[in-house]
Amino acid sequence: MPTESESNAASTAVAEAPPTASLTERFKQIRNFTEELCRPLVTEDYVVQSMQDVSPTKWHLSHTCWFFENFILTVEVPSYQSPDPSYAYLFNSYYVQSGERYSRPHRGFLTRPTVEEVYHYRAHVDRHMVELLETASEDVIQRVAPLVELGLNHEQQHQELLLTDIKHVFSMNPMYPVYRESGSSEESAPTQPIEWVEYAGGVQEIGHTGDGFAYDIEGPPHRVFLEPYKLASRLVTNGDYIEFMEAGGYQNPVLWLSDGWAIVEAQGWEAPIYWEKHDGTWCLFTLSGLREVRKNEPASHISYYEADAYARWAGARLPTETEWEAAAQGVEMNGNFVESKVFHPVPLDHAAAETPAQLFGDLWEWTSSHYSAYPGYKPAESAVGEYNGKFMCNQFVLRGGSCATPQSHIRITYRNFFPATARWQFAGIRLVRD
Amino acid sequence: MPTESESNAASTAVAEAPPTASLTERFKQIRNFTEELCRPLVTEDYVVQSMQDVSPTKWHLSHTCWFFENFILTVEVPSYQSPDPSYAYLFNSYYVQSGERYSRPHRGFLTRPTVEEVYHYRAHVDRHMVELLETASEDVIQRVAPLVELGLNHEQQHQELLLTDIKHVFSMNPMYPVYRESGSSEESAPTQPIEWVEYAGGVQEIGHTGDGFAYDIEGPPHRVFLEPYKLASRLVTNGDYIEFMEAGGYQNPVLWLSDGWAIVEAQGWEAPIYWEKHDGTWCLFTLSGLREVRKNEPASHISYYEADAYARWAGARLPTETEWEAAAQGVEMNGNFVESKVFHPVPLDHAAAETPAQLFGDLWEWTSSHYSAYPGYKPAESAVGEYNGKFMCNQFVLRGGSCATPQSHIRITYRNFFPATARWQFAGIRLVRD
Amino acid sequence: MPTESESNAASTAVAEAPPTASLTERFKQIRNFTEELCRPLVTEDYVVQSMQDVSPTKWHLSHTCWFFENFILTVEVPSYQSPDPSYAYLFNSYYVQSGERYSRPHRGFLTRPTVEEVYHYRAHVDRHMVELLETASEDVIQRVAPLVELGLNHEQQHQELLLTDIKHVFSMNPMYPVYRESGSSEESAPTQPIEWVEYAGGVQEIGHTGDGFAYDIEGPPHRVFLEPYKLASRLVTNGDYIEFMEAGGYQNPVLWLSDGWAIVEAQGWEAPIYWEKHDGTWCLFTLSGLREVRKNEPASHISYYEADAYARWAGARLPTETEWEAAAQGVEMNGNFVESKVFHPVPLDHAAAETPAQLFGDLWEWTSSHYSAYPGYKPAESAVGEYNGKFMCNQFVLRGGSCATPQSHIRITYRNFFPATARWQFAGIRLVRD
Amino acid sequence: MPTESESNAASTAVAEAPPTASLTERFKQIRNFTEELCRPLVTEDYVVQSMQDVSPTKWHLSHTCWFFENFILTVEVPSYQSPDPSYAYLFNSYYVQSGERYSRPHRGFLTRPTVEEVYHYRAHVDRHMVELLETASEDVIQRVAPLVELGLNHEQQHQELLLTDIKHVFSMNPMYPVYRESGSSEESAPTQPIEWVEYAGGVQEIGHTGDGFAYDIEGPPHRVFLEPYKLASRLVTNGDYIEFMEAGGYQNPVLWLSDGWAIVEAQGWEAPIYWEKHDGTWCLFTLSGLREVRKNEPASHISYYEADAYARWAGARLPTETEWEAAAQGVEMNGNFVESKVFHPVPLDHAAAETPAQLFGDLWEWTSSHYSAYPGYKPAESAVGEYNGKFMCNQFVLRGGSCATPQSHIRITYRNFFPATARWQFAGIRLVRD
Repeated sequence: MPTESESNAASTAVAEAPPTASLTERFKQIRNFTEELCRPLVTEDYVVQSMQDVSPTKWHLSHTCWFFENFILTVEVPSYQSPDPSYAYLFNSYYVQSGERYSRPHRGFLTRPTVEEVYHYRAHVDRHMVELLETASEDVIQRVAPLVELGLNHEQQHQELLLTDIKHVFSMNPMYPVYRESGSSEESAPTQPIEWVEYAGGVQEIGHTGDGFAYDIEGPPHRVFLEPYKLASRLVTNGDYIEFMEAGGYQNPVLWLSDGWAIVEAQGWEAPIYWEKHDGTWCLFTLSGLREVRKNEPASHISYYEADAYARWAGARLPTETEWEAAAQGVEMNGNFVESKVFHPVPLDHAAAETPAQLFGDLWEWTSSHYSAYPGYKPAESAVGEYNGKFMCNQFVLRGGSCATPQSHIRITYRNFFPATARWQFAGIRLVRD
Repeated sequence: MPTESESNAASTAVAEAPPTASLTERFKQIRNFTEELCRPLVTEDYVVQSMQDVSPTKWHLSHTCWFFENFILTVEVPSYQSPDPSYAYLFNSYYVQSGERYSRPHRGFLTRPTVEEVYHYRAHVDRHMVELLETASEDVIQRVAPLVELGLNHEQQHQELLLTDIKHVFSMNPMYPVYRESGSSEESAPTQPIEWVEYAGGVQEIGHTGDGFAYDIEGPPHRVFLEPYKLASRLVTNGDYIEFMEAGGYQNPVLWLSDGWAIVEAQGWEAPIYWEKHDGTWCLFTLSGLREVRKNEPASHISYYEADAYARWAGARLPTETEWEAAAQGVEMNGNFVESKVFHPVPLDHAAAETPAQLFGDLWEWTSSHYSAYPGYKPAESAVGEYNGKFMCNQFVLRGGSCATPQSHIRITYRNFFPATARWQFAGIRLVRD
Repeated sequence: MPTESESNAASTAVAEAPPTASLTERFKQIRNFTEELCRPLVTEDYVVQSMQDVSPTKWHLSHTCWFFENFILTVEVPSYQSPDPSYAYLFNSYYVQSGERYSRPHRGFLTRPTVEEVYHYRAHVDRHMVELLETASEDVIQRVAPLVELGLNHEQQHQELLLTDIKHVFSMNPMYPVYRESGSSEESAPTQPIEWVEYAGGVQEIGHTGDGFAYDIEGPPHRVFLEPYKLASRLVTNGDYIEFMEAGGYQNPVLWLSDGWAIVEAQGWEAPIYWEKHDGTWCLFTLSGLREVRKNEPASHISYYEADAYARWAGARLPTETEWEAAAQGVEMNGNFVESKVFHPVPLDHAAAETPAQLFGDLWEWTSSHYSAYPGYKPAESAVGEYNGKFMCNQFVLRGGSCATPQSHIRITYRNFFPATARWQFAGIRLVRD
Repeated sequence: MPTESESNAASTAVAEAPPTASLTERFKQIRNFTEELCRPLVTEDYVVQSMQDVSPTKWHLSHTCWFFENFILTVEVPSYQSPDPSYAYLFNSYYVQSGERYSRPHRGFLTRPTVEEVYHYRAHVDRHMVELLETASEDVIQRVAPLVELGLNHEQQHQELLLTDIKHVFSMNPMYPVYRESGSSEESAPTQPIEWVEYAGGVQEIGHTGDGFAYDIEGPPHRVFLEPYKLASRLVTNGDYIEFMEAGGYQNPVLWLSDGWAIVEAQGWEAPIYWEKHDGTWCLFTLSGLREVRKNEPASHISYYEADAYARWAGARLPTETEWEAAAQGVEMNGNFVESKVFHPVPLDHAAAETPAQLFGDLWEWTSSHYSAYPGYKPAESAVGEYNGKFMCNQFVLRGGSCATPQSHIRITYRNFFPATARWQFAGIRLVRD
């Protein structure tokens, strides 16, 4: 995702607007789910920005309102008024065509609007949106539906960010706040070794083609030529990763990209973020608090640099995004998504089958592909489409969604992206071999 | 005040402990007043740290508890337990002899303890402190009273910081939150021109001598030799300061200290902090919100660099701290202190008399004296006294208290100190001439 | 090229060692040419490092010696001794397997070895290398020849860097030092408008295949699938670029990548580096000193961000590296290389033909391709091959060579790479359209 | 000395111009001595700036020319022309009234003018200056003589800086260049313990009074009141300082000023600058190269923070500048100055006498006095006097001169000043007790 922790904003790819009734229902359901995710939080939790990549919960709640307000309500509803004229400035993220905006690194300095006012803002926007969707003419609905669809996908992205951001905020606190009490407290059976699923390569069709929603950067569909490759049957686990650490992975520059090694040295990396050694035991900060590392869980909160170094150490490499997508075609999109309310990757409880496991959910999977335009890519003209391409620089593509991603949000063609340094996302490692 | 926005921690100068009863009363009164100052705030306001010099309100409320807990309760009350073991780590400011502490620039990352828990912490400490004061033997009281006195003065310093810090937090918000509604809305009569009050100089006795409480750095009392000088009859006003600005004060390097000019250029200073030009009119952010600059008010939130440049432009200079103290001897300590609940300097409403006006309250007055030890100064041995001297580097002394200072906290010998760059305090300019 | 301003170090792709005699001759010729390029310099010029990307001339001269010394002489000649034991530390660039090395940003702090000593170092290494090449057994030659070839290509890369670096050093000096007097002083005829050369796309073979030398990253050869595209018949000129500037290109965020716009704002970019406005006229600092911008010259010293923004403004885009390579196949590799000793791009003096002009020489051409591994890429095992892949992150590929590149160094498959921010190289813009 | 490594520029205190003849002789002698100090250097040594506080030798040689050119020749000699018009820009240090100037941190980027041109510049200025002094009317001489005197003192300050700066440059080089071969190679007899010389205090006259030259900040003379104190009979030695180090001085925050400790931690200070541990032995980089630390030599290259921490550990303190000056009154100004050409402090070879030893020469002595104006201080009006006061912020006064100071440059009233962080000067520790 872009620096603004928000991505893929525009779509012109929606062939048909969905039926009004169902869109309204989906609108209510998705907007409600955002608030449901906030239920474990106290007022103070909504305010803090623990690093520049993080936004306060309050800001996520408001910015998603602003998106509907700015791109739909102020355009379609002449009488619409925002609860406060400063919201347009405060809650614009990075849309320069939509006007000036509040400095991103200062979002944590805003004590007002209060959390209560923010919820009023949400109710205000919801009321006007539902009224619009229920009363507008068919013409208007045809015009508005793609934007609503976009706004809902946008909302879902912020559901994930809300979780990864509050996790980072909590991690700064030596009191180790708990977002949701965990059920299991024991480590389950060990994970089976990785097996390698073979793919023949050749000319492959890549990119979004169907009728449903997709971000513009998932198309146009196009052909690529792939050499044969073998994909790992599962994600790399904490147990695998500890072997890398114990083999001196963080001490050996030969394993690292040059820029990655510079960060290892400058920031003293010795383990993934959220790992802490207590009395000689590796512990892990999770949304259920601090506990021991479990070896059979997928290794999470890995940066690209760490994923790449691990793969080199393991005698493998990371897949390209086209290798990943070709392998994922035809695989059912089940997995540990946000709806499971575990908020953490879970161990694989079965042996590897013919199809790679954990392709969807659990953890985003780093690919070796820099985030770039597909051939023939054209961003939309207006502000809403202004920014899909503007992050096509110095980021890598991740695929498959995570335990913080809504299941309905993911697609085989979905392209997430983050800089090589990003560690606070639920991202892990899938290996590939030639 | 030191980098830790806290100062003058130790005193061994209290000759006699005050009577127990009255100390308990004062304890309750001062602790209550801190909470009274927080009444206009909503929960979200307590959390934010808008720059490194600022601490969140929550932190001020807790750190002042920690002071009593760490230096008195854990020493004198064997059964005492803090509500949470992490508080000792979270709320120690800079006392290395009291153990490790949480990183100062990260104080705004703490969502927990919640505001409610912080108030419980206060009640908890208050209950144990009052119980101690009411039930301890005379011996214990004799030993504890100076530390209680110190803790109360410490509390009062944080009352002032709490106000200056929340003002800075609010100033970052384009919604211009209001701490306290202002009464007057019109500018009153113009201020009389400055007159010059003459002093003969010679050998002067400087420093604290009496029985009452004073910080250790206010002594030992000693003699200094002063040349004759003339002190301005009042503070510099906004009207005076606008003349400096309109004469190109912020554009003329000849008026500035070399380091000051470097900051003017690097940070683009064009006016004091909290001044904003709206439609060609200078406005001022105050604790009562944004409003037009009033020319007859004392110019506030001035850094040392600005005060020094202004004085040079005005053909005068800033007083030394000994000149200030010698002039203040015998003057009544009345003025616009925090008890007036104006939270802003007020215009001088009478003509100059034989005594300089506004010496106390309204604004701290920058002196040209670097903050250094008086001859024979010895800090106390223990942690409580550890740090009075450790800030004696690269700071300037300010005198007289401000509209955010409790009146009972101020003394003629009181030495406040801040770096030359500090602008977020209620500090202003008093001129002197040879 | 990598952060270390040096790239593509290893090759295992040399099928046959060239005949010994000719290798020795080429060794002498290329080593001599490096020194010939230094002839216009005075002693002081050799010392300075004007930014971290730049190395002092002295360092280039020594580091290229170290390369032969470290990878060949110390391995093959048991009796070989370096003139000074500290050279191995001082002149290793980034080869961690070759031991510790002197801090890169401090290279400009080294007054010793002196320039004279550096030339002795070169003579010392040359003498031993020639002796080795002339006396070694055929077996040794077979083993050594690929490394010599690599060292010579490495030397040629530093010839280019030596020129771009001294240009940057000179540019910091208000005396505008002249490296080489310029011949022409007048602007010649205007350039013809861009025409568009069409390519059909489809499956294309990409990467190095022949017997001659190539860096390992130019292979393995592989197939890619291209959509049809149209390549501009010439480079973008200063005249073209001025239109972009005058249309507000540097003031319009919509044209820029998000990271690019952040730099435009942070560093106040208003024109390419080396452009200065004097009395309302755009002037250009060149290796022949400061002079007016000539509209018919290719626009040079352009960063990726600027190239990308220009292309967007022009309704076009930058080519991918495979589009570029497919178009270059079969085109003769003539052009304005370093041997012409102009040290600056020259205007195109003929109308566009069926083949795009200026593909080789004049300016490196930014492609939209992030620098990544070709399928099946494997770096060599030893230190010499250690680092080809370690720069595969956050850099873009450039193609075709420049007026500072030796002609014998370039290939159709040659992949140069720099970060999107790099401006001090001779890099320009070739447009492409779908 | 100020940030610009130059200080005390103006004087209006010269009562009578010295006789012309002798001034010309002194002019020649002092200007020659600067060049004599450069004789051990090779061309490359003149170019480098190893940190912002350091200037290249070339720059010192040129800036001192510029001083005479700018303040005397361009004013008094209408036909005078500088060798190059850019020199006025390149070699102005910080005199804003004399026009724009080249960025200080970029002085090491200037390869031109060459060293040879710089010597021509010196010869050019010398020729015109001598001609002026030899041919001008008595009126002109009267006017010019104080400025010449100032320029010569300025030149002498740069003689010292030239040495401390080249030492720092050389220290960055692992080849350990030698400025001047050292004579002695063995450590001599141990130093006698410190004794304490008592002073009665009371009202003291401080500041420059005589007819000779002094910087304006040395006056006006004035009275101060001192408590009784005892001054250490000699400087702190390396042996003394090693005891502090071995007692954990660099690990104990209680000994340090708060800002000092922050630097110890941030920069990993474990010893004075130029100390390096080789095979378990403390070595010292000197202008005669690297060699073992000798315990009987005065501890040098100490920052204020280290001096202050050492004094606290030793149960003493640093003297105020008035204590130092009062003690120095009547002491002969002999010592190890630059004329001895040792360029390093030497061990004290005799037992302590009634007078403190080493007050002059060897090492500047940190005082606890922030650098501030004396009562009644008025800087001169013009550019030449513009800057004496502009450094009166966040610096401490040092007294007595060093082994790099010309003997004729020093006075009992001489006030040198540097920030508390400065380590590259020949500065050491004199203790005092109440």
